[in-house]
Amino acid sequence: MSADSSLLPVIDLRSDTVTRPTPAMLAAMMAAPVGDDVYEEDPTVRRLEEAAAARFGLEAGLFCPSGTMTNQIAIKAHTEPLSEVICEQTAHVYLWEVGGIAFHSGASVALLAGNRGRLTAAQVEAAIRPENIHYPTTRLVSLENTHNRGGGSCYSWDDLVAISEVAKRHGLARHLDGARIFNALVATGQRSEDYGQVFDSISVCLSKGLGAPVGSVLLGSADFIKKTKRIRKVMGGGMRQAGYIAAAGLYALENNVARLADDHRRATRLAETLRQQPYVAEVLNPETNLVIFRLQDSQPAAEFLQGLEQQGIRASSFGPQWIRFVTHLDVDDAGLARVEEALQQVAQLV
Amino acid sequence: MSADSSLLPVIDLRSDTVTRPTPAMLAAMMAAPVGDDVYEEDPTVRRLEEAAAARFGLEAGLFCPSGTMTNQIAIKAHTEPLSEVICEQTAHVYLWEVGGIAFHSGASVALLAGNRGRLTAAQVEAAIRPENIHYPTTRLVSLENTHNRGGGSCYSWDDLVAISEVAKRHGLARHLDGARIFNALVATGQRSEDYGQVFDSISVCLSKGLGAPVGSVLLGSADFIKKTKRIRKVMGGGMRQAGYIAAAGLYALENNVARLADDHRRATRLAETLRQQPYVAEVLNPETNLVIFRLQDSQPAAEFLQGLEQQGIRASSFGPQWIRFVTHLDVDDAGLARVEEALQQVAQLV
Amino acid sequence: MSADSSLLPVIDLRSDTVTRPTPAMLAAMMAAPVGDDVYEEDPTVRRLEEAAAARFGLEAGLFCPSGTMTNQIAIKAHTEPLSEVICEQTAHVYLWEVGGIAFHSGASVALLAGNRGRLTAAQVEAAIRPENIHYPTTRLVSLENTHNRGGGSCYSWDDLVAISEVAKRHGLARHLDGARIFNALVATGQRSEDYGQVFDSISVCLSKGLGAPVGSVLLGSADFIKKTKRIRKVMGGGMRQAGYIAAAGLYALENNVARLADDHRRATRLAETLRQQPYVAEVLNPETNLVIFRLQDSQPAAEFLQGLEQQGIRASSFGPQWIRFVTHLDVDDAGLARVEEALQQVAQLV
Amino acid sequence: MSADSSLLPVIDLRSDTVTRPTPAMLAAMMAAPVGDDVYEEDPTVRRLEEAAAARFGLEAGLFCPSGTMTNQIAIKAHTEPLSEVICEQTAHVYLWEVGGIAFHSGASVALLAGNRGRLTAAQVEAAIRPENIHYPTTRLVSLENTHNRGGGSCYSWDDLVAISEVAKRHGLARHLDGARIFNALVATGQRSEDYGQVFDSISVCLSKGLGAPVGSVLLGSADFIKKTKRIRKVMGGGMRQAGYIAAAGLYALENNVARLADDHRRATRLAETLRQQPYVAEVLNPETNLVIFRLQDSQPAAEFLQGLEQQGIRASSFGPQWIRFVTHLDVDDAGLARVEEALQQVAQLV
Repeated sequence: MSADSSLLPVIDLRSDTVTRPTPAMLAAMMAAPVGDDVYEEDPTVRRLEEAAAARFGLEAGLFCPSGTMTNQIAIKAHTEPLSEVICEQTAHVYLWEVGGIAFHSGASVALLAGNRGRLTAAQVEAAIRPENIHYPTTRLVSLENTHNRGGGSCYSWDDLVAISEVAKRHGLARHLDGARIFNALVATGQRSEDYGQVFDSISVCLSKGLGAPVGSVLLGSADFIKKTKRIRKVMGGGMRQAGYIAAAGLYALENNVARLADDHRRATRLAETLRQQPYVAEVLNPETNLVIFRLQDSQPAAEFLQGLEQQGIRASSFGPQWIRFVTHLDVDDAGLARVEEALQQVAQLV
Repeated sequence: MSADSSLLPVIDLRSDTVTRPTPAMLAAMMAAPVGDDVYEEDPTVRRLEEAAAARFGLEAGLFCPSGTMTNQIAIKAHTEPLSEVICEQTAHVYLWEVGGIAFHSGASVALLAGNRGRLTAAQVEAAIRPENIHYPTTRLVSLENTHNRGGGSCYSWDDLVAISEVAKRHGLARHLDGARIFNALVATGQRSEDYGQVFDSISVCLSKGLGAPVGSVLLGSADFIKKTKRIRKVMGGGMRQAGYIAAAGLYALENNVARLADDHRRATRLAETLRQQPYVAEVLNPETNLVIFRLQDSQPAAEFLQGLEQQGIRASSFGPQWIRFVTHLDVDDAGLARVEEALQQVAQLV
Repeated sequence: MSADSSLLPVIDLRSDTVTRPTPAMLAAMMAAPVGDDVYEEDPTVRRLEEAAAARFGLEAGLFCPSGTMTNQIAIKAHTEPLSEVICEQTAHVYLWEVGGIAFHSGASVALLAGNRGRLTAAQVEAAIRPENIHYPTTRLVSLENTHNRGGGSCYSWDDLVAISEVAKRHGLARHLDGARIFNALVATGQRSEDYGQVFDSISVCLSKGLGAPVGSVLLGSADFIKKTKRIRKVMGGGMRQAGYIAAAGLYALENNVARLADDHRRATRLAETLRQQPYVAEVLNPETNLVIFRLQDSQPAAEFLQGLEQQGIRASSFGPQWIRFVTHLDVDDAGLARVEEALQQVAQLV
Repeated sequence: MSADSSLLPVIDLRSDTVTRPTPAMLAAMMAAPVGDDVYEEDPTVRRLEEAAAARFGLEAGLFCPSGTMTNQIAIKAHTEPLSEVICEQTAHVYLWEVGGIAFHSGASVALLAGNRGRLTAAQVEAAIRPENIHYPTTRLVSLENTHNRGGGSCYSWDDLVAISEVAKRHGLARHLDGARIFNALVATGQRSEDYGQVFDSISVCLSKGLGAPVGSVLLGSADFIKKTKRIRKVMGGGMRQAGYIAAAGLYALENNVARLADDHRRATRLAETLRQQPYVAEVLNPETNLVIFRLQDSQPAAEFLQGLEQQGIRASSFGPQWIRFVTHLDVDDAGLARVEEALQQVAQLV
């Protein structure tokens, strides 16, 4: 089998960021009308920003080269030094953005322990700092939906509304790290247009499940987005003829959302297969396209990943004994079957 | 009783920061030889810095106007932006210094849940970030001894050594917030001279249990202290004829350490009295001079504090239903008796 | 004439950033092999980084979405808070990057008055701060070649060597903002391969005279570039399948350098034409592709720009009465003739 | 002579920061009623803050351990990151506060060349940045009166009013570094009470000409001072029983202002004496208590300072060949005569 697998294309389950554009997306990119976006003259960028904003019930958008940039710009714009940001203790904005909240914004963090990354309104309210010169000032609640570290978990609409109401009552801004927001929308049936009511800003990633090569869009009110343009500039996110990459995002918004249901179906099937393997101790129930599972202590993680690699399959370590599989545009049913077969093979090797 | 109590001096249990100098300490202040310390020419400041450093087995000291400044300078000197600091989730440096770690140092925090504020070596080791461009770089472990929020809890020497060894093995700097280090030393019998082996820097506060009006000293190697002088300057801590206040610190070091045992004895007695009150739900076992207790849900905290105030006794709220009493130089046995009487009175009112 | 001009394409002299890719460049983009560059797996990005580094005699490169990002990352990597950066008082890194030196690096600036933006070794040496706790520590000299505000002026090789030697003698890092470094190389005949001897880091822009749509490359030693990857990540410059835009940069490096001589020739001709106009008070001698000139006080600048606009020609205000013309890939000799005709027309209107 | 001089007390002309309290000031310090100022309960600190605010026509004050802290807190409170501060290129806040504007505030500086440190309204207006995403936002004008580096030069009232009007018209905050504001008031006859009309915040130093050992007061509106308390806290300027040092400031405000005229008279006499010395090339006309002069190139500065030192007189180097003398409380007419004699002696040695 390993001889054959070397001839097959690699199936990359490390992340949904690894997808490559389809020919149709590439054609859309190369046909895009462009201009100098620093002068706000790129029509394709503008179209993407407007389309994304409308989709989420917000006024305006800002195209950026990455989701880390859209998140960090939003946090900067919502806070000032001596502020505090409330987020989950495994939130991407805190855990995987190089300490950017402290670095860019000089802001402190109040870290809460969520249920698979989901906070409750009561938790948020309890974390708001009272007025006291010894304390930073709580300014922002930042949620993540789906929550990566929680295994692609989704917020219920009621919880979003409840947190939003607590935040508004206390004058806090509300940001959504929507790196995988479309997965959450497809999985829950929530309407994207309603999100503008419960968030002041949303970071929408185009280069994860949607399959665009580069870029995220930050959404918010017209005033908010105006303010963020200077922050994007100082962070080096002002690009020139960015329409080529924005065009991929536009294509993805129009063509690649509904199909996320397939990724979710495949993730569920992978979870079932994993649960049957003797070397798997625990599988988080997949709500979207992430499958997070823990290996038995007797099964070294490095060896497991190496075994998969020999079958042409790549995955990520996600903490000691924890592994993450991500389904996406470049993994079809045939690919899924290859993964399942490999998981069985690994079992035979153990 | 309340008529009489209005004639008696207030007993202030809010903090050991409220003490006023004794006549002998004031006389020492008045007689101090001074000079311009920005030019490093104040002989009293120099004597204090040298005496404090020697006492803790370190090379040099830096006199500063507050413990927040000594802590924040140390954290700044041990880190650079994109670093991460490991500390307990209720550490003073994180919780009560206005988010200074983010503000001054642009550094992220890894917040651990300790046992009454005490971390273990295993916890510290697990919190060190692996090498990965998504992560800040762990640079510093900051401990607090005694731990304020843990109710004046003390580290065992073995735990300090174990944490120190983990830190050294991973190349992390080791800072001690010693706001109440003398309480820990008196309570445990540890030798201050040994502390220089387990910490790279120590912040020693002179204006808490020691009774000096103003000031803290930051201790470390000669190179470290040299580096911190520029940081103190930019933070506005360079003072001129600071010898007057340094003299109080010197006096306190020489005269007010051993007597902390009295404060501890009184704290223990207060805890016993509190445990007998029907309105008290829980009392943390006092290890030093802090008594932290929780009122029954049926006893509103604001009303309890007001009741004490009417008896001429002041204390601090320490979270919902939690109260903190602090014993210190200005509370003698007669004062203690008054507090105990007042606690009974409050019981009768309930 | 204005009736006809409305049918002609606009000639945009505002900046060389406005160029659009040629069909050949677009084809190169479309054919680029790509991967996830956050995992360092995009072969086209890697090729661009290696090609650019080799060209300038340095070890490694880092592809970024803008020149502001490459400059600001370099400054961050060369300094720490409480550092000072020496640069010219009209340097792009100081004047046009939103105060990024203070914002990202917490570093102070020593601003020198150059000759058309060019500093001398003596100026640099005199600006180095002596050791004193009141002063920040001088860490970096940042030059700009060509110098935008100086009208595209070029450093002589001797001056670069002399400044480099002063910097090395005092332990300062040396950064080059090479937004238009290829213009300088073509104009002076200097060898790009020698630049690695006189600079520790170079920011090379691909989207100005070279005509790529997006991107800059930061060059330096392997260790330096390794350090900058974490900074790029926190600033949000980590992109996924960035090979599409990197491919344009590679194409530009291979095809669009020598032709900059044409832009220079056209700039010189424009300067001559301008000098003959009655409404022009002063023209800086163009050394490369920038023509900076001052209008007579009797000629309002806004009216002049509007007059050109009516002829289908766009240019930038560059301070009161000062105008900047930039020649580039999208302005050929026919375009130049149209500009010259328009300048005459404006004269008749005055 | 050098044998005799070794028996005489040193005359320290390096700075007016070197003064030591008189017995009367010391007595005032030790008699001060005190409390815990972090709880806002120190009556002496409060009296000082109120007295200083009233004196300058402002609402409230904040006592801090140094003038660097009062200046840097004010700049922080008036700006946010991505702001720009307009100041003179030799202003203390820029030149001698360790780059604190960038470090604490993440703010850029617009540096202007004044006439002996004095700016004009026209200069300030020309330095305000237009609205443009490439630029930081101009937020603050910071003046220094007297201007240290300008040799103790004073602003005219008309110039202060004119700058204030420009600032207000453009929505800029107005800060005064009043390290030596009492010297300016005494020299010009301006009324301190009027200053609240032309500045939003004033830093008043108590430990320079006024002779207090430690401390500065920041003045402003009640809202502004409320905001600065949190900033003082994070910077480590919150002190406990600070009344002892505040008392010296109060004493100085009440007793040591009018006598500054003597310092000015002595500075003028020193300037005259210096002008007669063959080794002196140039003396800035002293407007207050600073005498700045340049030695002939033939007279090495280090040797000159050493010659004075042998006569028991200390002074500061102030750049190559430049020397600064400062007259103050601890230099009386007899001391002045000794300095004059020493200046003659040095001449004989040359």
